[in-house]
Amino acid sequence: MELTKEYTYEPLTEETATTLAIRLGLFRNDVTLTCKEIGDGNLNLIFHIRDEVNNQGIIIKQALPYAKVVGESWPLTINRNKIERDALHVFGQYVPEFVPKVYYSDETLAIMIMEDLSHLVIARKGLINNAHYPVLAKHIGVYLAKTLFYTSDFALDPQEKKKLVKQFSNPELCKITEDLVFTDPFFNHETNNFEDELTPSVHQIWENIKLKQEVAKLKKKFVTTGEALLHGDLHTGSIFASESQTKVIDPEFAFYGPIGFDVGQFIANLLLNALSKPEHERLKLYDQIIETWNTFKETFTTSWVQDSIEIYTKIEGYLDFTLSQIFEDTIGFAGCEMIRRTIGLAHVADLDGIEKLNDRLIAKTNALSLGTELILNRDSIYSVEELIVFIRSVLQHD
Amino acid sequence: MELTKEYTYEPLTEETATTLAIRLGLFRNDVTLTCKEIGDGNLNLIFHIRDEVNNQGIIIKQALPYAKVVGESWPLTINRNKIERDALHVFGQYVPEFVPKVYYSDETLAIMIMEDLSHLVIARKGLINNAHYPVLAKHIGVYLAKTLFYTSDFALDPQEKKKLVKQFSNPELCKITEDLVFTDPFFNHETNNFEDELTPSVHQIWENIKLKQEVAKLKKKFVTTGEALLHGDLHTGSIFASESQTKVIDPEFAFYGPIGFDVGQFIANLLLNALSKPEHERLKLYDQIIETWNTFKETFTTSWVQDSIEIYTKIEGYLDFTLSQIFEDTIGFAGCEMIRRTIGLAHVADLDGIEKLNDRLIAKTNALSLGTELILNRDSIYSVEELIVFIRSVLQHD
Repeated sequence: MELTKEYTYEPLTEETATTLAIRLGLFRNDVTLTCKEIGDGNLNLIFHIRDEVNNQGIIIKQALPYAKVVGESWPLTINRNKIERDALHVFGQYVPEFVPKVYYSDETLAIMIMEDLSHLVIARKGLINNAHYPVLAKHIGVYLAKTLFYTSDFALDPQEKKKLVKQFSNPELCKITEDLVFTDPFFNHETNNFEDELTPSVHQIWENIKLKQEVAKLKKKFVTTGEALLHGDLHTGSIFASESQTKVIDPEFAFYGPIGFDVGQFIANLLLNALSKPEHERLKLYDQIIETWNTFKETFTTSWVQDSIEIYTKIEGYLDFTLSQIFEDTIGFAGCEMIRRTIGLAHVADLDGIEKLNDRLIAKTNALSLGTELILNRDSIYSVEELIVFIRSVLQHD
Repeated sequence: MELTKEYTYEPLTEETATTLAIRLGLFRNDVTLTCKEIGDGNLNLIFHIRDEVNNQGIIIKQALPYAKVVGESWPLTINRNKIERDALHVFGQYVPEFVPKVYYSDETLAIMIMEDLSHLVIARKGLINNAHYPVLAKHIGVYLAKTLFYTSDFALDPQEKKKLVKQFSNPELCKITEDLVFTDPFFNHETNNFEDELTPSVHQIWENIKLKQEVAKLKKKFVTTGEALLHGDLHTGSIFASESQTKVIDPEFAFYGPIGFDVGQFIANLLLNALSKPEHERLKLYDQIIETWNTFKETFTTSWVQDSIEIYTKIEGYLDFTLSQIFEDTIGFAGCEMIRRTIGLAHVADLDGIEKLNDRLIAKTNALSLGTELILNRDSIYSVEELIVFIRSVLQHD
């Protein structure tokens, strides 16, 4: 299963990717393979190699040594491929059912060969197209609770946890989040990207001192608090889903951070999708949010009771405190995600894909107001049901 | 300046320590040296080598591969010698005046050769003997503010900071603090150590659910929050002092943790000393606490204004929030330190040295009550002056 000794990093082509797959014995020698590069070319090459006759396939993901977003390009460590592989390995120990299988990896080439998930659809795309996802929220609730609880100090030997903290030190990718989620959108920064018509709403954000104080606290929490091994980029574009299956992919941003960040990003992306829909279609997304949080809470609680190694978890009240802290962080981080996806560098198709300018502007203005209010009121919302009531009241006021 | 290539770790003797000092050219060849091992043999060997004629000296500190405390012995990484050296190096960049000079180090032998500070006295000893320390509080206030601010995300490039977080991963020594400061004293654990007469007070602590909830939060903050490079063990036994000079030694426990921990440990140890004195002699220790905090606050503020690289530090109100958060943590961590130094494994001479049993019991009971009340009320004390009023009111009630 080894390549020749003398090799250095170079981007694969459809041809060399196929050769590699054959050399690694991932397909029989006598089959006809097709290979297609299906990445967007911004961060990674993604080769989809298939044996159509036997209906078998694999994905080869290779990190490119740069990131390209909206015309800009900057160097970016290919080490993120290893972080992703290692994170999939850790998460796979706790939720194998929600994580793609990894067949092979090579650090020099910065490649990882994975399970072909092409029978599933990216959840963002599905949600935009009104796909029915009856198990998505439940699956993600379990995924979040288990990956986050079992990599935390509540479940891990302290020395083991500190080893993982070191292993998942991920400064370059964290910097992207620090800048693009927590900083640039709240200041007049050149990376921002929004329609001219949004300028008054954007200025309201930039001039809102109270809001910026709260985002400062959330950013500080993000950079200083290593509670659990996060996915780090858990939006609906990082999830493959069908009516019965859910797979969370792309944990390149994995690092030890605050638990509420992963939960908040997922919920924010459900909300962004909700805002792209007419009011009567939002209910089912609110229900998904409620089910995600409730599943998270139940699963986290069960793990806490059954598997905690921290003696203080036996102290009455500590679980409630922990969950309420995570919930508060979740709401705050969700607010940041909503704002940055609307006026920052990286947008979401849910909003950008709204064809009519006026509808799009309304949805985006709603995203900004809601993001702002979530951040400002995160410490006075005590249950997910209250959260939905709060969200609806904010949206009605506009 | 290199030793022969083939060598492995072995404990030095007074003879081999002297040979090493000469081989390294730290003394002239023709002088007569005296060497004395002056460590307590529990964790490290400390060789004091002197050229009496020319009045020059050095200290060789060597980590032992175990820790011995109160008869128990357990293996402990000698890597802590490197952590200590690296921490002295980092702190030396910001407060060279308060950190011993390091002349040489060797990771294999786990040794560090340092400035001889024998003209100074350990502050704990001095305080017990009523030494006059007119600059101690000011110096430690500056030391704390500068070491903590300049190693935080407020001052460091995010990637540089994350490198330091990795470099100062210190699981074994953190575990000691996690157990001996935050856990064992609050449960009926075999490492605890207290006079029989204290049993009722100790049971009050073990049965105080509200207290244990709050200690759980403080412990969680300690294990998850990497705000700055801490000294990690900043009690008055880690400080050499005179009327005009202050040197902070022994940062073996250095790691990225919450800023209030260092500040709280120092203040707690001033309080423990205060409790060992008659009431009228406590005032000057309260003044030291006030001066420490005020100096910390002023110096931290100046650095924040002048040297911050974090854009959010320009937002009105964020400095006040940060300082008030540090103050709250400081009070909580100080409370934990007071309790563990009274009933946990490692005591302080300030209290244990009180000769009369009854006086000693009163002082220790006071330490337990005060520790408890500080932890429970840390979020409703808003200034250091209020803190002193609060402390005095707790002590009067008993």
